[in-house]
Amino acid sequence: MSEFLEVPNFALQKGGMLPLARLAYRTLGTLNAARDNAVLVPSWYTGTDADSEFVFCGGGKRALDPGKHFIILTNLLGNGISSSPSNTPAPYDRGMFPNVTLYDNVVLQHKLVTGTFGITRLHLVTGWSMGACQTYQWASQYPDMVRAAAPIAGSARTASFNKIFLLSLRRALTLDPAFDEGFYARPPLAGLRAFAAIYAGWGVSEAFFRTKAYAAFGASTHEEFSQYFWEPFFQKCDANNLLSQLWTWEHGDISDTPAFKGDFEAALAAIKAKTIILPVDLDRYFPPVDSEYEARFMPNGECRTINSIWGHMAPFNPADAAIIDAALNELLG
Amino acid sequence: MSEFLEVPNFALQKGGMLPLARLAYRTLGTLNAARDNAVLVPSWYTGTDADSEFVFCGGGKRALDPGKHFIILTNLLGNGISSSPSNTPAPYDRGMFPNVTLYDNVVLQHKLVTGTFGITRLHLVTGWSMGACQTYQWASQYPDMVRAAAPIAGSARTASFNKIFLLSLRRALTLDPAFDEGFYARPPLAGLRAFAAIYAGWGVSEAFFRTKAYAAFGASTHEEFSQYFWEPFFQKCDANNLLSQLWTWEHGDISDTPAFKGDFEAALAAIKAKTIILPVDLDRYFPPVDSEYEARFMPNGECRTINSIWGHMAPFNPADAAIIDAALNELLG
Repeated sequence: MSEFLEVPNFALQKGGMLPLARLAYRTLGTLNAARDNAVLVPSWYTGTDADSEFVFCGGGKRALDPGKHFIILTNLLGNGISSSPSNTPAPYDRGMFPNVTLYDNVVLQHKLVTGTFGITRLHLVTGWSMGACQTYQWASQYPDMVRAAAPIAGSARTASFNKIFLLSLRRALTLDPAFDEGFYARPPLAGLRAFAAIYAGWGVSEAFFRTKAYAAFGASTHEEFSQYFWEPFFQKCDANNLLSQLWTWEHGDISDTPAFKGDFEAALAAIKAKTIILPVDLDRYFPPVDSEYEARFMPNGECRTINSIWGHMAPFNPADAAIIDAALNELLG
Repeated sequence: MSEFLEVPNFALQKGGMLPLARLAYRTLGTLNAARDNAVLVPSWYTGTDADSEFVFCGGGKRALDPGKHFIILTNLLGNGISSSPSNTPAPYDRGMFPNVTLYDNVVLQHKLVTGTFGITRLHLVTGWSMGACQTYQWASQYPDMVRAAAPIAGSARTASFNKIFLLSLRRALTLDPAFDEGFYARPPLAGLRAFAAIYAGWGVSEAFFRTKAYAAFGASTHEEFSQYFWEPFFQKCDANNLLSQLWTWEHGDISDTPAFKGDFEAALAAIKAKTIILPVDLDRYFPPVDSEYEARFMPNGECRTINSIWGHMAPFNPADAAIIDAALNELLG
């Protein structure tokens, strides 16, 4: 079950505010007396705290172990559990939900970590995809609070190639006349199906299709892979929530803060955490070349590329999850 | 100016017929007395005979030389010049235009080459993208008629990864309510813009964006690249024509013929032409790995991969066009 931190009159980085910002989270394990065993895991695009628990803590002995660590699983603003278009009262509901940044998300999470739990230093921050983007954001925004970091298949600044993917997703979804500028009477299903088909072509690699690895999802063709996996995946999501999180993703940039004023290399250099960056060689929108660039400017950063035909979806492949766990174990010490 | 071959009552491979199939083409140069200097260049997706002339014969000394060769530039069915949804009378107009295959296209081109020009053997067949797909189709469908072949950034059978890209394009375009099942009163512009944004993310490589190579199009951001190049590119196209050619592309498979009955390796093995396959390393939908597979089964096939951040669009980059011309010169002898 999720719990909530509520922050009234929460001013947003890019203008506007939320009269009552709600950050949903769940915790696993126990915070020790020294308060130094906390691991923070921010959620990915569409992901929830429950999803993070399943992917990072499920299936037997895992690196993130509630028997040892106090694991805080947070929900991204816009994901439908934290404050989102789908659950915020008028006049900030649906198509009128304000734009939130990764900076805003991390400010809220910081209030949770320090205010609610009295933690002054996180033992580890890790996350996948937009969870990785939040990991970079944490390490740069609060450098003294992050002992170690492991961004998995994400970036510190959203690349323009990634942005063209996001642009195509937004254009397709909002084309559906049922979308109605965010005030839909029923879900814009055709738009969500177009969204799913675009995602299917980016979420995994060319080799994943060529080797018919989609058989792991019970699919025997590319179209069945879209039908059996990607369509249900996105049809369960609220369209406005998808677009809200998409805006957040699109504007990811750790240097877009009052402290760094767009100086990306300086924002990377400010990161003190021992960091293992874990990109995937065949990730189509977070290519390792950008991770390597980031690592060059981070005093304690190392880029360790995972080779996997699962591409961006590598953490869902048990063999790749084991590689990720090995890196997390190294950082957990 | 295009000329036309008209074939009445043209039965189509996948059912239905065209009461008057029109194959548009233009020729450059002169057919010699031996009729052995003919080069056939089928068009690409959305491309025309004029586009082929510009790309393959423009800009000074090129491999395809009207001073030496009789160059036949054909137009794909559905491209708006050959029989297409946009120019065919009812009841086969617009959304009711029948599905045509690469096999159908090549049957028509064969009638032109043999019937109109009395050519029994083509000195070379070459083309880019869907023009490459037609090149494979020719070499397999009429193996004794193709002396040499150079498919550039295409495939003999459309891969499932490629098909998921095409599925996403179709879903986005047909979502536009203005599309109206193909009977639009005005162009479905929003649909075409979504189509353009999807294409922008596949047409060139990640490195093209990362290095801001889109500056070659006057663009300074990913969105400007979409606006300045891809949107005008597709907004000039008729939506039904785009979908017709897309269906043809999606169903590309040289073995889907009465002769080969789906035996892909046999269809490749039947190719007698000396062939240089020219894929591009960073082509997102026609990856070299498929070309290498094809070459293994072709008795006289060689795969020669071009390295270019222009990806699929390599022939539009002068440096890559020079590499292509060198291979064509080798084949022309």
